[in-house]
Amino acid sequence: MALNSQYDAIGKGFVQQYYTLFDDPAQRPNLANMYNVETSFMTFEGVQLQGAVKIMEKLNALTFQKIGRLITSVDSQPMFDGGVLINVLGRLQCDDDPPHPYIQTFVLKPLGDSFFVQHDIFRLGIHDVA
Amino acid sequence: MALNSQYDAIGKGFVQQYYTLFDDPAQRPNLANMYNVETSFMTFEGVQLQGAVKIMEKLNALTFQKIGRLITSVDSQPMFDGGVLINVLGRLQCDDDPPHPYIQTFVLKPLGDSFFVQHDIFRLGIHDVA
Repeated sequence: MALNSQYDAIGKGFVQQYYTLFDDPAQRPNLANMYNVETSFMTFEGVQLQGAVKIMEKLNALTFQKIGRLITSVDSQPMFDGGVLINVLGRLQCDDDPPHPYIQTFVLKPLGDSFFVQHDIFRLGIHDVA
Repeated sequence: MALNSQYDAIGKGFVQQYYTLFDDPAQRPNLANMYNVETSFMTFEGVQLQGAVKIMEKLNALTFQKIGRLITSVDSQPMFDGGVLINVLGRLQCDDDPPHPYIQTFVLKPLGDSFFVQHDIFRLGIHDVA
């Protein structure tokens, strides 16, 4: 499969779609549709999870109701299997906690006319604030 | 090709090896060996570069001599083509500038008994410091 020349629009569109669901507790369970039952990997603050069930257990266990999110940058690259690598840098404020920088990396894999999340790495940058 | 069960050691080993070369201006040109002449992508502070020549033009143009680097986390995941996805969060101090958080994502692809860097995304977290 060739490089997807639309990688930048795909990356930005995906990020917007993903966080719209993530940031609304009522819609967050729908993120399950973005992960594969077996072949999706998530590393959440250093904890490794595989498969949509385990990933959604983690995401559904997040208890904060209010999320303030500011996206600083979305850098995407086309991959040689038709996928897209996406790197997000932003700030996140959960309920009444102070805002923290965070990073999230996604690898989208083609599936029919769409994509699923094959790789997802999330880290808060708590230890990096001066 | 199957998942490489050594992904965590490969990720940590690569990061150490890469930054040892990067942080020494005399050794930095040797990073050229880690990129493919045609199929490596780098996004450096939002600037897209393809191929070892353009990537090394960028890296060799960095003028700072002293680099202080602190690695906060290295998160790696195995990829289904035998590659490794690596996400680095750290702090970087160049010459006498103040230290800044940074993120760098690598995708390593298998090449014989070793790997090359197929994808590389670098961002300073300047806008994310409170």
